Amino acid sequence: MASLSAHSQKHKVCVVGSGNWGTTIAKVVAENCKEHNDIFEEEVQMWVFEEQYQIPETSKHYDASNELTSKPQKLTSLINTFHENVKYLPNIALPHNIVANPDLLDAVKGATILVFNLPHQFIAKTCDTLRGNIVPFARGISCVKGVDVSESGCELFSESIGEKLGIYCGALSGANIATEVALEKWSETTASHVDLTNLVAESIKNASGKIQHLKSLPSEYPALHARNMKKLFHRPYFHVRIVSDVAGVSLGGALKNVVALGAGWVDGLGWGDNAKAAVMRVGIMEEVRFGKMFFADTVRAESFTEESCGVADMITSCGSGRNFRCAKMSAAEGKPISEIEKRELNGQQLQGTGTAYEVNAFLKMQGKEKEFPLFTAVYNILEGKYQAKDIPDLIEQKD
Amino acid sequence: MASLSAHSQKHKVCVVGSGNWGTTIAKVVAENCKEHNDIFEEEVQMWVFEEQYQIPETSKHYDASNELTSKPQKLTSLINTFHENVKYLPNIALPHNIVANPDLLDAVKGATILVFNLPHQFIAKTCDTLRGNIVPFARGISCVKGVDVSESGCELFSESIGEKLGIYCGALSGANIATEVALEKWSETTASHVDLTNLVAESIKNASGKIQHLKSLPSEYPALHARNMKKLFHRPYFHVRIVSDVAGVSLGGALKNVVALGAGWVDGLGWGDNAKAAVMRVGIMEEVRFGKMFFADTVRAESFTEESCGVADMITSCGSGRNFRCAKMSAAEGKPISEIEKRELNGQQLQGTGTAYEVNAFLKMQGKEKEFPLFTAVYNILEGKYQAKDIPDLIEQKD
Repeated sequence: MASLSAHSQKHKVCVVGSGNWGTTIAKVVAENCKEHNDIFEEEVQMWVFEEQYQIPETSKHYDASNELTSKPQKLTSLINTFHENVKYLPNIALPHNIVANPDLLDAVKGATILVFNLPHQFIAKTCDTLRGNIVPFARGISCVKGVDVSESGCELFSESIGEKLGIYCGALSGANIATEVALEKWSETTASHVDLTNLVAESIKNASGKIQHLKSLPSEYPALHARNMKKLFHRPYFHVRIVSDVAGVSLGGALKNVVALGAGWVDGLGWGDNAKAAVMRVGIMEEVRFGKMFFADTVRAESFTEESCGVADMITSCGSGRNFRCAKMSAAEGKPISEIEKRELNGQQLQGTGTAYEVNAFLKMQGKEKEFPLFTAVYNILEGKYQAKDIPDLIEQKD
Repeated sequence: MASLSAHSQKHKVCVVGSGNWGTTIAKVVAENCKEHNDIFEEEVQMWVFEEQYQIPETSKHYDASNELTSKPQKLTSLINTFHENVKYLPNIALPHNIVANPDLLDAVKGATILVFNLPHQFIAKTCDTLRGNIVPFARGISCVKGVDVSESGCELFSESIGEKLGIYCGALSGANIATEVALEKWSETTASHVDLTNLVAESIKNASGKIQHLKSLPSEYPALHARNMKKLFHRPYFHVRIVSDVAGVSLGGALKNVVALGAGWVDGLGWGDNAKAAVMRVGIMEEVRFGKMFFADTVRAESFTEESCGVADMITSCGSGRNFRCAKMSAAEGKPISEIEKRELNGQQLQGTGTAYEVNAFLKMQGKEKEFPLFTAVYNILEGKYQAKDIPDLIEQKD
């Protein structure tokens, strides 16, 4: 173990978040920390937002004579006892080297790698708590899907995290339905990571063009180049490709939901697979254009056209994703998508419609609506200005 | 009509072939020749391999008192009478400016644009007949899917045609299920065309690197630049993008069938949409690698990753194509694909299995099997050396 002898310290990993996808990623990471224990400490901390949870009587863990399962208990106690996230990822055995921890600051103590995987509305508050209380040379990676688009700008979650905490933060995204990954059904993913091994000036320009000041990783630790970052996430059932383009990785996961509405509509009209594939192709090209226009310094077309976070995630979302399914029903039944959403999603909301409005507000502000005919068409159809059948006309390139 | 006054001649178009896809393309082209009659002669010749055909009693054209429909008749007479290809594209009204012609040499007489759309096994013989009997400065475009791969090489149908006839021949391919296009359900396509307007040396290097001698188009005719070629094929329901890369356009339509087998297998194993999207993504990347390795001079990665002939055709083939469907049944039922093929296809053969063997023989000969792990995995699974469940392992990039 050459790398062990060369470094006196190993990386300590904390997963910040423990929902369905957060717990799945903690499982992946913990398996790898055990396998590559020359680079990583085996124990993986997982921060859990504490809550009381009553194991249902149908659970295999339920035992009326045991107070732990017959009465509501702390979720962390249940996870650490049963090595299963009984609430958010039931029936999936977790590696025993995952430690569920309800104390955020205790969980990140000494962690040199922070994996963020929590609902985006909790990012800001969580970072406020963490600020100044983490290892200053830590590296982060955000598994939070999407970007924060508004009239005023287009912010990557990974960069918001990185800026707030003063650390480098990459992103991980791909065609990854959490429950399938948890069941170890094979998939691919894309992780963006910039090799900061030879960081000299202690500052880098991020994807939005801002200068960020960073601390070098002390030489006691194994370098966090692409190969070692890959070792943290790559499994036989979860193939990782590392790229340098954080904006591309983040944008695909958000914009695909807008495209999935368009693909669902044309499919719902009975136009068949040709038309659906055409919407997806045009959608990928608008993702590329969006990236190049607003993150010109770092974005690479290939992140959208060649990587899991781009084309593959688009395929998955337009195959079984709920934006696609609801849009398809909407066109087939001739009903507004909001009505389908209410009927099908038990009060949950489609991400695609929200993102379509946010993206449109941003593009309007930038005076760029016309350069994104598909994104604009989806918005206008949601607004009732056009119908799904107008899509070919609205995106036709006549010359 | 500025272009009319500038040119004393218009382009005469002949569609060589009249099957399901051939007749569909003739319909598209005839609609455009009428619309753009400043550039094209309105009349479009369609060469039909003559046969006797008896209209079925269930047809709306059947009339027991009319000899034309109550007895077997020449297919060309039926097409020209009913403006419908009653045998190969029934129930689709054809424009009246299509003339079905059983005489190949008469059909191509004076044609400056030849659209080839016939089964690939008839190409060689048809070209033998045409050789020396066509307008020497004609331009061709081949809608024949696929390429001719064997141990000895990888030949593009468009180039075989071009070389045999001594003309430039481009290619058209995309996510185009013929019956959907015939019904004017919206789709996109990709046409490769090199602008030879300013052809000076009368010779060009084709995609395989061979020098081809060509005749300039006389200045009496409107130039055949990309904009005019687009006008020949583009319809409100059939959106055309023109590229210069004939190899990329041709390869996608062949190699996707190999990938569709892999995608069908993982789907049949119940691995879900993540895994299927991963196979498709890897497949697109192997298409790019194949193109770059064997057609390095002209091929562009974007033809596979950004165009209808690449990514969109892959999506369609892995959605409802029969290679995909049969492979899926094969994995789900645990039966060899040859058994499924017999049961499901009424004696027809899957293209994917044939292409997988041809591509493998070619790659073996070139010593390049290892650089195409997915294509090689598909071949080895067909051969029984591996199973579908081994795919992730076989294509894993460990470093």
